[in-house]
Amino acid sequence: MISLRLRNLKNKEDIMNNCDFLITEPFEYIGKWNKVFNNNNPIYIEIGMGFGKFIYENALNNPNINYIGIEKYDNVVARAIKKIEKLDNLIIIRMDARFIDKVFDKEIDRIYLNFSDPWPKKGQANRRLTSPYFLELYDKIFKSNNNIHMKTDNSKLFAYSIESLNNYGYKLSNITFDLHKDESSVITTEYEEKFVSKGNNIYYLEANK
Amino acid sequence: MISLRLRNLKNKEDIMNNCDFLITEPFEYIGKWNKVFNNNNPIYIEIGMGFGKFIYENALNNPNINYIGIEKYDNVVARAIKKIEKLDNLIIIRMDARFIDKVFDKEIDRIYLNFSDPWPKKGQANRRLTSPYFLELYDKIFKSNNNIHMKTDNSKLFAYSIESLNNYGYKLSNITFDLHKDESSVITTEYEEKFVSKGNNIYYLEANK
Repeated sequence: MISLRLRNLKNKEDIMNNCDFLITEPFEYIGKWNKVFNNNNPIYIEIGMGFGKFIYENALNNPNINYIGIEKYDNVVARAIKKIEKLDNLIIIRMDARFIDKVFDKEIDRIYLNFSDPWPKKGQANRRLTSPYFLELYDKIFKSNNNIHMKTDNSKLFAYSIESLNNYGYKLSNITFDLHKDESSVITTEYEEKFVSKGNNIYYLEANK
Repeated sequence: MISLRLRNLKNKEDIMNNCDFLITEPFEYIGKWNKVFNNNNPIYIEIGMGFGKFIYENALNNPNINYIGIEKYDNVVARAIKKIEKLDNLIIIRMDARFIDKVFDKEIDRIYLNFSDPWPKKGQANRRLTSPYFLELYDKIFKSNNNIHMKTDNSKLFAYSIESLNNYGYKLSNITFDLHKDESSVITTEYEEKFVSKGNNIYYLEANK
C-alpha cells in the first residue's frame, strides 16, 4: 500500500476548482453517468486511483470505455490532476468509497482495486475494499455482471480477498502471485513501478459474479 | 514438490511384505474401513504421504482419529515403513490416487494434500490433485462434508488450486502465504522442514463443501 501522507499542496483548492474533469459532488449524477459521458459505453471505475497513472493510461488506450477514477484525499486528487490530461472518457471523483452506492446505480461494468489499503487490524476488516461490507455495496452498482480486477503487493490482503470473494459467491480466475513475470504487458500504478523495480511480486486476480 | 527418484531399495519387497500396517490391495476394503480400524472414528487420508512423517505424527497426536497414508511408489513406501512405528490408528496404502474412488465409498472425513506434484504443463493439469478430475473423485469418497487441507511451496499450483476449488463450489478458509510465520505449531513433512529452514514460504488453505 502506498503511503499518501504527502506534504500539503498549498494550491490544491485552485487546482481542483479549475479542473473540468473532476467531480466533487457526484451524488446528483446517480443513474445518469452515461449521460455525463454522452454515450452508452461500458464504465470501469478504479477505487483509490492514487496519482491516476493506471486509470489515465487505460483511458488513453481504450477510447470506447469510460473510466472513472475515485480518490478520497484532496492532496492526492490535486496531484493526479496535475499529471493527467483531459480525455473524453475519463472523469475523476473525489469521494469516500463508502458512499459509492449513493453515486452509482446498476451502471458499472468493472471495478479496479489496485494496491488498496490492507487495513491489517482485525477491527478494521470492514474497511478493506474486498470486505463483505464493500462487496454488498458493489452489488448495487454493478450493471449486470460483477467484474473485479484486483492487484496488490500485500499477501495478507490478497489471502483475505480470495476468501472474502470466494465466500461471497465470486468465481475467481487468472490468479497469479507474480503478475509481471506471467504477463508481458501490464498497465502499472506509480507505486507498482517502484515496487516491481525492487524485484518484488505483485498478486493479481479477477473475480466474476 | 519433493523429487522421489531415489536409488532403488534392494530389500523393498521384504520390507513391504513384512509390514502389517501396509495394504497393497485396498480395493476389497471399500466401504469397510471402519471395520478395518475396528471403530467409528473419523478417517483422515493423506494423498502422497512421501516418507510419512506428517501422517505418522498426526496419528501419534490424535489417537481418536484414523489416518491412512497413500503413496504410489514402492521405494517411497518402503522407506516410510522403515521410519514409522505401528500405531492402531494408522494404515499405509500403496496405490495410485486415480483409483481412490475404488477404495473408499463415502467414508473419508478429511483429505490432506501436502506438497503435491505441480504437474506444471497444461496438458498435465488433470493430474494435479486439485484438478476437477480429482475433485470429482473426492466427492465420491467424502462422508458428508468435504474437507481438504492443502499446503505447498509451489505458487502456481496454489493459484491453480484456489481457482479450481473455488470454481467447484468449495468454501476457502485459513488461507496463508506464509504458514510458518502465521501458525506457531505445524506438523511438517520431511520436505517442508528442509524448505522452511532455507527461509522459504509455505502456502496453505482449507476448503470445505
